Amino acid sequence: MPGRVKAPVPVDCAMDHSGRQARLREALQNSKLDFLLVTHPPNLRYLCGFTGSTGILLLGQRSSVFFTDGRYTEQARLEVESARAVISRKPPLAEACARLDAGRRGTSLGIESDHMTVSARSRLRQLLPRGVRLRESAGLVEQGRRVKEAAEIARLRAAVLVGDQLFSRALEVIRPGVTESEVAAELEYAARRAGAEAMSFPTIVAAGTRSALPHGQASSARIPRSGFVVLDFGVILAGYCSDMTRTVYVGRPTRRERSWYEAVREAQGAATRAVRAGRVSGEVDQAARKVLQREGLGHYFTHSTGHGVGLEIHEAPRLASRETEVLRAGMVVTIEPGVYLPGKGGVRIEDMVVVTEGGCEVLTPTGKELITV
Amino acid sequence: MPGRVKAPVPVDCAMDHSGRQARLREALQNSKLDFLLVTHPPNLRYLCGFTGSTGILLLGQRSSVFFTDGRYTEQARLEVESARAVISRKPPLAEACARLDAGRRGTSLGIESDHMTVSARSRLRQLLPRGVRLRESAGLVEQGRRVKEAAEIARLRAAVLVGDQLFSRALEVIRPGVTESEVAAELEYAARRAGAEAMSFPTIVAAGTRSALPHGQASSARIPRSGFVVLDFGVILAGYCSDMTRTVYVGRPTRRERSWYEAVREAQGAATRAVRAGRVSGEVDQAARKVLQREGLGHYFTHSTGHGVGLEIHEAPRLASRETEVLRAGMVVTIEPGVYLPGKGGVRIEDMVVVTEGGCEVLTPTGKELITV
Repeated sequence: MPGRVKAPVPVDCAMDHSGRQARLREALQNSKLDFLLVTHPPNLRYLCGFTGSTGILLLGQRSSVFFTDGRYTEQARLEVESARAVISRKPPLAEACARLDAGRRGTSLGIESDHMTVSARSRLRQLLPRGVRLRESAGLVEQGRRVKEAAEIARLRAAVLVGDQLFSRALEVIRPGVTESEVAAELEYAARRAGAEAMSFPTIVAAGTRSALPHGQASSARIPRSGFVVLDFGVILAGYCSDMTRTVYVGRPTRRERSWYEAVREAQGAATRAVRAGRVSGEVDQAARKVLQREGLGHYFTHSTGHGVGLEIHEAPRLASRETEVLRAGMVVTIEPGVYLPGKGGVRIEDMVVVTEGGCEVLTPTGKELITV
Repeated sequence: MPGRVKAPVPVDCAMDHSGRQARLREALQNSKLDFLLVTHPPNLRYLCGFTGSTGILLLGQRSSVFFTDGRYTEQARLEVESARAVISRKPPLAEACARLDAGRRGTSLGIESDHMTVSARSRLRQLLPRGVRLRESAGLVEQGRRVKEAAEIARLRAAVLVGDQLFSRALEVIRPGVTESEVAAELEYAARRAGAEAMSFPTIVAAGTRSALPHGQASSARIPRSGFVVLDFGVILAGYCSDMTRTVYVGRPTRRERSWYEAVREAQGAATRAVRAGRVSGEVDQAARKVLQREGLGHYFTHSTGHGVGLEIHEAPRLASRETEVLRAGMVVTIEPGVYLPGKGGVRIEDMVVVTEGGCEVLTPTGKELITV
């Protein structure tokens, strides 16, 4: 017999699963839904703590049943809270459908239409008992996830602090001739050593002219003798994501390059100052965009200013120019303007902030002076 | 001006994008489709080399147009082959719809229904010009991806060899008291140093009783004084995934534990010997299952025997008991039976193999004797 190890503490034990389900039930009632079929893994984790990749939560006004298959027997036992767990021999979708109250006419079942594929819906349709109407119900769980609970902000804060450590580590290794992948390797190694479960997205290390690629994942390209290096990375710690970007310069920047950096830094500050509960999210984007336009760089700012972060790296709200969502205290968003001059280089600076009544709290402690290596 | 770096070689330059598109056009014709709207990122990469996360390929009988947004201007220029690239100011989906021949009546447009969400289809419906009929067309591109080209097998082979190196590295660090995450950290660091773009899935390091979790991702749990440690991991190298599992023992296994290991090893061998072009995939699963049933362990083999691997970690064909797909030469699959005894421990052994006319070639060079640490 192998030696016993201490059973891992359910990682989401501090999370208020039953409260979240109660709020979701209200949303169901407002949408006149009898049941919601939750299939999106981050939503499953949010509602009942399950961290595996295959499961279904069937949430009704008086019931909460979680279905998974035999691969997850142990994991479901350890993790699932506030729901009855059923290990299904049939595909979990078939099992869930079989439990739907077929006798009652006119049952309405919401699906997560932002996540369920067209093929999965076709399969679902064939499995449904008569009298169950399917309704496209996008974003019901995400609605609750927008505003973070104190326990979630604590986890996000911890994840951000790990990110800050990684940046320090990256600074030790960035120099001409080192490949972008080698920088990513050191950074990701430090992340694991710090307890991160994974990176929250593929690490971006984009050096020299590659810094003009907003999504330039670390490649085998070598860091040149001079030029910007954009580092954009994050970790997942206890399920929650961090996201930060810093841009450093290898060698001596020209006056023009320095001006690009300072313009982005100013835009990032302006957007941060624009964050406040009650503000429309698009105004935050406009605050950054205005600065870059004034500097003649508006055309090179080719993405939006930020996005929510939580269990997923990209969540609501979006901070884009035409967005009209009103910010609320407890939302956690990135502020990350950038400029990308094809063939020349790019600069991006990104923090994570928590929206407060009076403004925001910047979670990212990392300095923003231009660092030259 | 920053120093110039050599533009990265388009990573998919050795790939036969135009041949793939030609074969897909035949499939379109057989399905009576005028156009296919390709949205699944691995399929985009397969057909035109684009490795970003947001793009659309609209493939018709005489046209191939790729749409993306401003974030990917540079990347599209460097990577996209055998298609005209359009950088869209509108959302790429809207741009693609606007190009559909609205004048002609009865145009049929296939969508990748296994990947497109229900919400995306609703948006698409609203954008489509009159006279365009939408058709659920699952798996058309995947059909072509099942059988790998020589250049793809070469990449898979290279990825598998990196995996073998990582296992050697893991053996150097596994000992009682080390956390599972620390083992994963060393393994992933070695992967990056070897040039991997990323891990192909979250690394599994499951020690002691946690080895009974088939999907036990590396956690903060410490390796106990005695028990199995399941290591299941893979890398992405030049876009292609590797996948391997080895189980080692820390301490001295009991006779019973050793018998579990040997049963899995025998099952893995039996399944490997069952692989051959022309065989039904379910028979490979049955070959493994039969051995474990004979050893009284059938009940503890809670997943299927294997799956295809390529640009994605899970591809067709599936090697599961009731699958009827016929294996073809050039398919690349995993062979990975396992047993999981709750509260006691688990064993899994996994190789990647290429199906050949006469049997298969095992790509994974790693030994399968029980290693004790």
